[in-house]
Amino acid sequence: MNDSVQMAALKKPLPDSLLAALQSLFEDRVSVTEAMRMHHGRDESSYDPMLPDAVVFAQTTEEVADVVKLCAAHEVPIIPYGTGTSLEGHILALRGGVCIDLSQMNRVLSVHPEDLTVTVEPGVTRKQLNAEIRDTGLFFPIDPGADASLGGMVATRASGTNAVRYGTMRENTLALTVVTADGSIIRTGTRAKKSSAGYDLTRLFVGSEGTLGIVTEITVKLYPQPEAVSAAVCSFPSAGDAVRTVIQAIQMGIPLARVEFLDEAGVKAINRHDKLSLPESPLLMFEFHGSEAGVKEQAELVQEIAAEHHAIGFEWATRQEDRSRLWAARHNAYFALLQMRPGSRAISTDCCVPISRLAECILDTKADCEQHGLVHAIIGHVGDGNFHVQMLVDPNDAEDIARAEGVNARMVARALAMDGTCTGEHGVGMHKMDFLVQEHGEPAIAVMRTIKHALDPKNILNPGKIIRW
Amino acid sequence: MNDSVQMAALKKPLPDSLLAALQSLFEDRVSVTEAMRMHHGRDESSYDPMLPDAVVFAQTTEEVADVVKLCAAHEVPIIPYGTGTSLEGHILALRGGVCIDLSQMNRVLSVHPEDLTVTVEPGVTRKQLNAEIRDTGLFFPIDPGADASLGGMVATRASGTNAVRYGTMRENTLALTVVTADGSIIRTGTRAKKSSAGYDLTRLFVGSEGTLGIVTEITVKLYPQPEAVSAAVCSFPSAGDAVRTVIQAIQMGIPLARVEFLDEAGVKAINRHDKLSLPESPLLMFEFHGSEAGVKEQAELVQEIAAEHHAIGFEWATRQEDRSRLWAARHNAYFALLQMRPGSRAISTDCCVPISRLAECILDTKADCEQHGLVHAIIGHVGDGNFHVQMLVDPNDAEDIARAEGVNARMVARALAMDGTCTGEHGVGMHKMDFLVQEHGEPAIAVMRTIKHALDPKNILNPGKIIRW
Repeated sequence: MNDSVQMAALKKPLPDSLLAALQSLFEDRVSVTEAMRMHHGRDESSYDPMLPDAVVFAQTTEEVADVVKLCAAHEVPIIPYGTGTSLEGHILALRGGVCIDLSQMNRVLSVHPEDLTVTVEPGVTRKQLNAEIRDTGLFFPIDPGADASLGGMVATRASGTNAVRYGTMRENTLALTVVTADGSIIRTGTRAKKSSAGYDLTRLFVGSEGTLGIVTEITVKLYPQPEAVSAAVCSFPSAGDAVRTVIQAIQMGIPLARVEFLDEAGVKAINRHDKLSLPESPLLMFEFHGSEAGVKEQAELVQEIAAEHHAIGFEWATRQEDRSRLWAARHNAYFALLQMRPGSRAISTDCCVPISRLAECILDTKADCEQHGLVHAIIGHVGDGNFHVQMLVDPNDAEDIARAEGVNARMVARALAMDGTCTGEHGVGMHKMDFLVQEHGEPAIAVMRTIKHALDPKNILNPGKIIRW
Repeated sequence: MNDSVQMAALKKPLPDSLLAALQSLFEDRVSVTEAMRMHHGRDESSYDPMLPDAVVFAQTTEEVADVVKLCAAHEVPIIPYGTGTSLEGHILALRGGVCIDLSQMNRVLSVHPEDLTVTVEPGVTRKQLNAEIRDTGLFFPIDPGADASLGGMVATRASGTNAVRYGTMRENTLALTVVTADGSIIRTGTRAKKSSAGYDLTRLFVGSEGTLGIVTEITVKLYPQPEAVSAAVCSFPSAGDAVRTVIQAIQMGIPLARVEFLDEAGVKAINRHDKLSLPESPLLMFEFHGSEAGVKEQAELVQEIAAEHHAIGFEWATRQEDRSRLWAARHNAYFALLQMRPGSRAISTDCCVPISRLAECILDTKADCEQHGLVHAIIGHVGDGNFHVQMLVDPNDAEDIARAEGVNARMVARALAMDGTCTGEHGVGMHKMDFLVQEHGEPAIAVMRTIKHALDPKNILNPGKIIRW
């Protein structure tokens, strides 16, 4: 945690004139209470909170620009805040400053069902969006576990269980409105499905974790609700059998909508948390989208592949309520796992490898966890080669934490050696800055740093995240 | 053409010491002959050639880095060259300098069929790639009309007829090796299917047209060859009926692999050039990929939709050779059209709009062409909302050219008002720099310029393209 110590040393008190200016503009939408600052100074990582000096609730793009201009004039850090569900310390106020809470910018601005696009404010959450567009017959597929805000999902380049079929925020974001470090307002794209018009600013801001600009409007793709949906669960005698089933299905080009892996510990946790009675061995959860005939065809093919890999049963969830219950359990896995060791905190890993190496990466990592006696579970978006090891550590036991971080570091090294990445969907935040250097190498990091310096010369946009200044 | 005049004024003779250094390193792989420079000083746009001072044939990433370092030391422009098939003046040597021909870097470096990825050098062409990987059962779908190099396709963010199903170079490029303006070598990503690891350098270089770095290795996604493929052609009494058929099919979520529109003039041209006998009225060409049952289902649905829109016949091309002939004709359309007016040059437009506005945009543009008496045809990747008006002008008739540019300018304004883009796949080059400003607005262009200044502070990488310095 050297970074946080060094950064905290750079912390300066919030200038009175800045606070006065914010209060004059935002009145009761500025808060400096301890409770409010505490709420905005933590995420779901295992870091201790680091509090901003003030929290401002913005309601328009112009208000965000006003805050940025004021903070720029005073060289005070700005941290955008959505729902606080990030996992790598993304929103912690290392150097204090002003947190811009965007949760009141939560309007769905324009739905274009005929073009399969929607434009929203950054505080709209994924569940809210799907509720608001349900009548159009369309849906927005990207589903990180939490009911995250779209702004946060842009910031971390989020994905989730549907990414294997529908892609991530990278593929699904068409255009953004962004407030840049000098308070300018830019639009990065149009609603055209493709474009060769200049540098891809949209993709540059997607995944930039609030370090290059504050996103204030987001245009994403929507998809027709499939005519037919079916889901299935299937248990395996070993994690290797389960993962090899997925590898083969992907290599055959079967357009799986979802395929999630849970190891034995993961299944136990959701059984207990969600009152399910799934067999407590490595499990795959599948979902198929398409026409009635297409879904049947896909499912039959997958069932055949699973049988070749020693599947134990292949159970259908044909009723909507059974499917919803199953996927709700999957989305609750993070919290279900936390309850496996009361009082613990989770250290969650997030590597992603080429799919041919996935079984090896998971099995070696599992062996490492077992060797070091870590309470853990492995769950994963295995169709993309992405998995999470969730290690439950005693927050007061430095050795326990060090053991978990050791597993994480070795797993990242393993993934990088397989030409994979240290983070498939959670982002870098504070936690993975060293891994990022390992992954990209100094020359590529230098290019990222050059971009950061050019677009945020005063280092006021979420400083201390992604790359060191 | 003010830009080219201004840029030419900045042109300095190639320093003798630079030429000597290049000759010492590259021996007979450096050329300063008029013929070689002429060959590398033109593309397929209607611009007059602008010649580089020397052409170097690089064979490795390190050699590219050597050239860049030498040119950087002398502040001499560098222009990467693939197959010379760009359409907007991308490779013209506005200020002279050194052209790096990458055609000898044409090795397929590593195929990973089990991960559906391949890594190639930038001189590999799309047809070469597909020939070399045929035995794996996989294919690379992106097909601009020309047999372009993968490096050029990265540079322009190319797409083509399959993009409606498989995406563009934006979605299909996983990682790049790039030589930056100071001669550093960076790798922008890994072979993981998704990643949240820092700024998206891959997408920043895709579409940057050689202005931010020289791409020397490219990792792209591959796809399983579909189990079944079928194709069909279908004529319509009007362009509106044809386009509305496509809009409805897309909105229903039918996973069309290809859907191409040709207006009456386009059909006439390919009939004559490829000895076909298609009905000479607005035409759609479809291709369906999937399982046997899936393809049949898709095709039947599309046939029903087409019938609702007054389709005249719906003819199947079930044999492989008929399909190949049809798609070869489509890919030859550019040259077929040129032959409609011997001695002419083509001015090709490339806008892309949200699909609900496509019929209106095409019909208004067609009316504009007719009103101004332009020899033209409209062809398009209509499933993406992207179409090209190809206007055949007399290169010696300034008024003819001005009329065509007038149609283009009004069409771009129309597309932008529909929240579309001035270029769906051809790129900006020299020709669309003003349109780019119209599309993005000054503040966003300023961000692009900041990035260019930061990554290429001496303005040596393909100067005068995309944005003005």
